[in-house]
Amino acid sequence: MSTAAPRTAGPDHLWSVDEHLDDILATVRPLEPIELHLLDAQGCVLVEDITVPVSLPPFDNSSMDGYAVRVADVAGASEQYPAALEVVGDVAAGQADLLHVGPGQAARIMTGAPLPPGAETVVPVEWTDGGLGEGPVTGMRAGSLDPGGATGQVRVHRPAEARAHVRAKGSDVKAGDRALAAGTVLGPPQISLLAAIGRGTVRVRPRPRVVVLSTGSELVQPDEELRSGQIYDSNSFALTAAARDAGAIAYRVGAVADDATTLRDTIEDQLVRADLMVTTGGVSVGAYDVVKEALSYAADEDEPGSGVEFRKLAMQPGKPQGFGSIGPDHTPLLALPGNPVSSYVSFELFVRPAIRTLMGLTDVHRPRARAKLTADRPLTSPRGRRQFLRARYTDGTVTPVGGAGSHLVAALAQADALIVVPEDAESVAPGTEVEVVLLG
Amino acid sequence: MSTAAPRTAGPDHLWSVDEHLDDILATVRPLEPIELHLLDAQGCVLVEDITVPVSLPPFDNSSMDGYAVRVADVAGASEQYPAALEVVGDVAAGQADLLHVGPGQAARIMTGAPLPPGAETVVPVEWTDGGLGEGPVTGMRAGSLDPGGATGQVRVHRPAEARAHVRAKGSDVKAGDRALAAGTVLGPPQISLLAAIGRGTVRVRPRPRVVVLSTGSELVQPDEELRSGQIYDSNSFALTAAARDAGAIAYRVGAVADDATTLRDTIEDQLVRADLMVTTGGVSVGAYDVVKEALSYAADEDEPGSGVEFRKLAMQPGKPQGFGSIGPDHTPLLALPGNPVSSYVSFELFVRPAIRTLMGLTDVHRPRARAKLTADRPLTSPRGRRQFLRARYTDGTVTPVGGAGSHLVAALAQADALIVVPEDAESVAPGTEVEVVLLG
Repeated sequence: MSTAAPRTAGPDHLWSVDEHLDDILATVRPLEPIELHLLDAQGCVLVEDITVPVSLPPFDNSSMDGYAVRVADVAGASEQYPAALEVVGDVAAGQADLLHVGPGQAARIMTGAPLPPGAETVVPVEWTDGGLGEGPVTGMRAGSLDPGGATGQVRVHRPAEARAHVRAKGSDVKAGDRALAAGTVLGPPQISLLAAIGRGTVRVRPRPRVVVLSTGSELVQPDEELRSGQIYDSNSFALTAAARDAGAIAYRVGAVADDATTLRDTIEDQLVRADLMVTTGGVSVGAYDVVKEALSYAADEDEPGSGVEFRKLAMQPGKPQGFGSIGPDHTPLLALPGNPVSSYVSFELFVRPAIRTLMGLTDVHRPRARAKLTADRPLTSPRGRRQFLRARYTDGTVTPVGGAGSHLVAALAQADALIVVPEDAESVAPGTEVEVVLLG
Repeated sequence: MSTAAPRTAGPDHLWSVDEHLDDILATVRPLEPIELHLLDAQGCVLVEDITVPVSLPPFDNSSMDGYAVRVADVAGASEQYPAALEVVGDVAAGQADLLHVGPGQAARIMTGAPLPPGAETVVPVEWTDGGLGEGPVTGMRAGSLDPGGATGQVRVHRPAEARAHVRAKGSDVKAGDRALAAGTVLGPPQISLLAAIGRGTVRVRPRPRVVVLSTGSELVQPDEELRSGQIYDSNSFALTAAARDAGAIAYRVGAVADDATTLRDTIEDQLVRADLMVTTGGVSVGAYDVVKEALSYAADEDEPGSGVEFRKLAMQPGKPQGFGSIGPDHTPLLALPGNPVSSYVSFELFVRPAIRTLMGLTDVHRPRARAKLTADRPLTSPRGRRQFLRARYTDGTVTPVGGAGSHLVAALAQADALIVVPEDAESVAPGTEVEVVLLG
């Protein structure tokens, strides 16, 4: 990996994609951990080693519905010569007061119920007459409908070894074992284990709260009327959805007009609920590039250490970018270009890794693959810029969709990958193996 | 695919995994579509073809910050012999009233702003002196700080072809084109496109609401004190998390004691917010298998057509299963076994596809792969039952973790795949290629 260019690289430094990304990843820090209820911690990263406080299962228990008996009492039993035992009662799951099973006796036992004292093994109900005095049965009748099943006599048709159909205490995990290591991402099976060992809350890094804000006086909200010179705001929707996809809690502020004071006020208002701010538009070289104007001001007036730097990247699309931090908590801010495709590609390359870094994940990037280019003609790419082309990936081959124009949002909706054309390539012939980013 | 066994197959029919799954998929129907706001529709399936109402971009506009000029006025221009043009004003993005660019004139234009009448092409600001009367500039000064930039004279250093740096109206999508087809899953790029063409709401199948309820008098909630014979409720947590993972809105009811009336009342209470109900425990052959008892009652007393059937599957873990529908809306219900591993494996095989069918997805199953078995000794499996073993999958090889016992939840938390051992195999030697379900 290359090292980040110095933050003082100056306005004329042309940043490489890697330098910009390295600068972001070197700056953004995982969020402080908090204690969350299990289901609120889904998808989060654990920050503590979890030790098993009590062995699982916590007691010897039956793995079958059947009868708890002594081994000697069923030795040599067969359907022709069954062992007849006195049923002394039921042992249900969750039962605390256990009867004692003596010689010649059996307790009817349910799956998960503790093995009662005196009993040495369990015979499944299917190996017995179920107390009905006839042939083998397939199950028990409901206890509420047939209380008599817990008394009388049962005939056992097969012998059982000691501790057959018994799950031993501690056979799953033992008290003191490490259940999960710090750094584990909590999916359903990990949540299952935590609940099983009695943990109702855990210390994790929370999901980052990401505020998404688009800028541009030309932007109108969907379903409103489009007047001359206007277009619909799509970036705030796309990036809010993409931020959620990356694991964040995302808030869409929508479009702010090209006025520095309004933008500054809006950003200051939103800071309270932001672990990361993302803006689109207003970062280029125009006379109304309001994000640049508003945040340069913030850098002067705010706390020391804050400040957003606007850069040119050796990249297509996505050349103009801003990165820095704002406000008293030095909240990281990524200022993306306003073209829908530029902002989406920038999100995938820079914002998604930032979100996943805030979450404490180590695997912060989209997966990449090598694929054979399928195309009618060579791809062209500007020398000195790394190009990202929308494409479809299937089984080791990749096909571009749509053109290179950064406004071609229709093609983006058909794409599931980005072809990476390196800085030194001006042309890529069909059949060439290329690198692709898989958008998943 | 095998066909589902008849629902009247009777209590002695041993169902194959495929028969049970086919029965579920043949019964569960996609939810009725509703109109949702774009961001609420994320991850949902579109049920309508979306046609583009207005071409994108809706007007010819500049792809650069620069000057809108006539081609003849900049023909032959160079840094040594620049074309000097009168700046007649600014054209900002979103501007409705456009000035006219006549011969010898230029309008300062911003990215995304409409190409003003009279202008034929755009020269980027970097090809000009920016109106400062010196060498080439790298950008414009903010309009608010330098109103004079919109007047005076600009020197252009390079010629431009007609419509250079102009994005033509309709070059992205044209009015009448199909933007997205019914059946599309709405991810961030699709949401981007819908917003861009002005769609604020869309008709989709909503996320299913899944109510998860565990049963067992032995169950205690995490963080409470564990008494003799009790264990912690983990299934309701695991399956709620897994249902969310599958795309559902999941509600965890928690554990209900083994009492048929309480369970029936709880289920009836919950029906109002359920598109699918999932229970765990109480489905086997014991005397306190309360789900079986409670839902057999529901089948007798409820609407015609309702009813839950309890089955034995040729499967390990997960032999006892219930499936059917309950209540006036015939809400589908899957009754899973109570062992944590059995219930989790059953969820992956049966509930997840049911949830994704409710969503209207066509890709309802976990991906599968072939992998080479790495193990110290052969795997053993009961003849006639399809076994699912927890395992770790890496690059075409798969290694079992933990034992076959269905209570080994610790091993489940280490697994990312299930090895499928077919019904006719009793032993699988290391090195054999096996089928695996990737849990992702």
